[in-house]
Amino acid sequence: MLARTDELIAELCGRFPGRVSTTPPDRSAYARDLWPRGLIGAAAGDAAPHPPDAVVWPTSTDEVAEIVRAAQRTGTPIVPYGAGSGVCGGAMPIRGGLLVDLKRMRRLVELDARAGAATFEAGVLGEHLEHELNRRGFTLGHFPSSIMCSTYGGWLAARSAGQLSTKYGKIEDMVRRLTFVDGRGQIHELESGGSPDLVQLVVGSEGTLGIITQATCTVRPLPDVRLYRGWAFPRVAAGLEAIRRLLQRNLRPAAVRLYDELDSFLHRSEKEKPHEGHESEHDAAQSEGSALGEWLAMLTPSGRGLLADWKKRAINAALSRPDLVNRFAGAVLPYAQNGCLLVVGFEGERTTTEAETLAAAVELERAGGRDLGPGPGERWLAHRYAVSFRMSKVFDAGAFVDTMEVATTWDRLLELYAAVRQAVSPIAFVMAHFSHAYADGCSIYFTFAAKGATRVDAERKYDAIWRAGLAAANRVGATISHHHGVGLSKAPFMPEEHGEAMSIYRALKDVLDPSSIMNPGKMGL
Amino acid sequence: MLARTDELIAELCGRFPGRVSTTPPDRSAYARDLWPRGLIGAAAGDAAPHPPDAVVWPTSTDEVAEIVRAAQRTGTPIVPYGAGSGVCGGAMPIRGGLLVDLKRMRRLVELDARAGAATFEAGVLGEHLEHELNRRGFTLGHFPSSIMCSTYGGWLAARSAGQLSTKYGKIEDMVRRLTFVDGRGQIHELESGGSPDLVQLVVGSEGTLGIITQATCTVRPLPDVRLYRGWAFPRVAAGLEAIRRLLQRNLRPAAVRLYDELDSFLHRSEKEKPHEGHESEHDAAQSEGSALGEWLAMLTPSGRGLLADWKKRAINAALSRPDLVNRFAGAVLPYAQNGCLLVVGFEGERTTTEAETLAAAVELERAGGRDLGPGPGERWLAHRYAVSFRMSKVFDAGAFVDTMEVATTWDRLLELYAAVRQAVSPIAFVMAHFSHAYADGCSIYFTFAAKGATRVDAERKYDAIWRAGLAAANRVGATISHHHGVGLSKAPFMPEEHGEAMSIYRALKDVLDPSSIMNPGKMGL
Repeated sequence: MLARTDELIAELCGRFPGRVSTTPPDRSAYARDLWPRGLIGAAAGDAAPHPPDAVVWPTSTDEVAEIVRAAQRTGTPIVPYGAGSGVCGGAMPIRGGLLVDLKRMRRLVELDARAGAATFEAGVLGEHLEHELNRRGFTLGHFPSSIMCSTYGGWLAARSAGQLSTKYGKIEDMVRRLTFVDGRGQIHELESGGSPDLVQLVVGSEGTLGIITQATCTVRPLPDVRLYRGWAFPRVAAGLEAIRRLLQRNLRPAAVRLYDELDSFLHRSEKEKPHEGHESEHDAAQSEGSALGEWLAMLTPSGRGLLADWKKRAINAALSRPDLVNRFAGAVLPYAQNGCLLVVGFEGERTTTEAETLAAAVELERAGGRDLGPGPGERWLAHRYAVSFRMSKVFDAGAFVDTMEVATTWDRLLELYAAVRQAVSPIAFVMAHFSHAYADGCSIYFTFAAKGATRVDAERKYDAIWRAGLAAANRVGATISHHHGVGLSKAPFMPEEHGEAMSIYRALKDVLDPSSIMNPGKMGL
Repeated sequence: MLARTDELIAELCGRFPGRVSTTPPDRSAYARDLWPRGLIGAAAGDAAPHPPDAVVWPTSTDEVAEIVRAAQRTGTPIVPYGAGSGVCGGAMPIRGGLLVDLKRMRRLVELDARAGAATFEAGVLGEHLEHELNRRGFTLGHFPSSIMCSTYGGWLAARSAGQLSTKYGKIEDMVRRLTFVDGRGQIHELESGGSPDLVQLVVGSEGTLGIITQATCTVRPLPDVRLYRGWAFPRVAAGLEAIRRLLQRNLRPAAVRLYDELDSFLHRSEKEKPHEGHESEHDAAQSEGSALGEWLAMLTPSGRGLLADWKKRAINAALSRPDLVNRFAGAVLPYAQNGCLLVVGFEGERTTTEAETLAAAVELERAGGRDLGPGPGERWLAHRYAVSFRMSKVFDAGAFVDTMEVATTWDRLLELYAAVRQAVSPIAFVMAHFSHAYADGCSIYFTFAAKGATRVDAERKYDAIWRAGLAAANRVGATISHHHGVGLSKAPFMPEEHGEAMSIYRALKDVLDPSSIMNPGKMGL
């Protein structure tokens, strides 16, 4: 720790008694977020290489500004922190310094029912925010699977998408106003929609330009009705074509999720197994790879927590010979009946929602879909959050799992799917679903799992998977980040995606954070 | 003209033979856009004080970049120009220099039906762009009343909104990719949706950071059906409340237009007059203020081109004693039957559009509306473009007309309406309609007309109206520009609206246009 950082911490301890910590447990707890590469080391019992020197908990925008100004004087790095659910290392310190945890800033500042707008402080947990709105008859319409362990400010900082973004938009579409402390400690109140619109610069900047402390978003009345159903399609291509036609006919489902053959196969076998739930948690824990299996099962509409023995064995096989399992999926599964599961849900005012459901059914049948009834849709709805906060449990003995969300326009979507699968298949067990569909395109959510002989081997494999997957995405011309952000894991791919635009971004960084203290090393800056 | 500008023009003439003009007619034709303050002088026969020194017509992005680099070397100001329909002076040179007219860049570069995306060069006229798409079964969904006399690039540069923006979004919501030449002549290819999203910085920058040369937008299939109807509401407040409830119940009409009492009164009397159309154009032209009357009538759903004698007299009276007419409107009209006309239109796929129409009818009746049938909706639809390109005809003998579009959230909308009306009423005849409604708020489109004894008196009145109107908008906390841009007319109000954010904007300007040659004096920079 630099002498000047020491000086800063002493100053902050005096200024904010009881709200600054330098204890080893706190420093260690805040040394990582949910970036799987970091969790490989954590599972192996290694300490994070660059824990923060101190953690501070401000309670107001003015305090945040004061902290930033003090850090700028001493040249101390700052990492803004919400709930640490990020999976790209965006909230992981890599040069020590000060970790600014916003979770004590969690107030509902104002709910203006007439304006259809709510203002919250940035540190509020997603689930709490939604609960506060629901109590008053409203919803934000933003439901990331991490909602239990992510914050409002984190959503804005990383351009988060909820599971119903097809209807309600991504978080950047909802934000109207935000309060932002730049890297000089200057407070900005920015509004969407005027010229220049600087809100979209701050949204998605992942703490590299400053700290979002408060924001106003559009809220909606709770829907009168929710109509979610499952549809079966023989192949991914047919399912995607159906989604594209739905969207381009201006139908706006809340949820659209198409699982690829392997993903669908795992769901279905899960649902069909005869003695479901009879296996004890203890048995499951004994089998290597079971936590992974449990986690994978959570991705499914049936949402079961336990797997049959055969499936555990299959996953273990997949971890050691992913190439074989992937080849099986590519070659055999497409010819199985009901290859792919599509979940489509509409919600809102009753009359129009029923009409939308009807119009969608006509379109989906025309596209070759078979109606599976409300079951799969309702199961998905019931279990949709049971994923993110369980992920860290699967890391064990070199096994790891991660997700990669890339997006592109409809014309390149199948190419993107094939390219990433092909690039990652030799190294990892890979499955995918398509969600977050829009009129112009769709994102693909790849889940991959692999196992290294040692920690170092696991990290090597992990890096190889990402290099191969993102290089494939770049080749197709896709965006490498739909809603998980960029952080550390995708930073090396920024110049290739953004080209000359990075120079504009760097120039902005120089203006707003002239001392380069804000979340250094992230976003390719 | 500076010697260095001379040098630049000589260079460009050599480089682009036949595509550079320094003739007085060309310089004079490009010395103004449709900013009404400029038209007051034009009607009085005065020359524009700062015509461009030369006009150049590039045909490609590379040529634009070459021109900008040459201008940067000589420090010559550049004004990018589309079709000159701007009403805020954004395309009006104020320091001479080079006017870059993009109208020879008008190609449809690509229509990708699968991707639902079209790429056009920036100089294409709106009507031509829409026609090209319609021929192929698509629409952009962007219908500003200026569509006959404005360009795609101009829409993007000024954050244009079409009349159906409630359904299709503003132009900034449609854009996916754009090609942009900055003030150093560097070419950028920017994409929406990633982090950082720099597209929204360039959109709305009105040529102050560089020149948009090409863009890709989302396109939609042509709607199967269009269902437009008129509704009567006793008061503006009731009509607005009805619109808010429609929008906040997630209904998305294509058009929502509520005319205030005076605006509605003029429409209605227009429709009800017995010998409609029998008056000759010649008679109309003889009466002072008739061109204004004709133009005002064009704003109405009935869209008639001629006015009855009594109305011409009323408008003349209004021009000399606006305070009296405005007071009449405020005091008497609200108590007349059918005070306000609301046009609501849905369009799209048949089943859902019919359901939306039904759901909207239930909501509008519950809010106190009376169904007037499809007539007013269809009349509005038929005449919706017959406005912008006629505006310049009304400037005569010191009479002038202008429109002011401000916007705010639902909670402040009536306050904004009252504040601007009150501020402008002593100086000008003022009427308004509410359009471009969204879940979070709505814009108000004020039309005002006045007459000065002399050119100088007219300009003095004109400035007083804008000062009073925008100061009122600022006080309410509204945005001073919903879709006409900022240009010159609103530039002095930028610091008050954007505060500290202007420093970020200036810093960006320094990076992208270090020689300050791009559209100098605009946007408050």
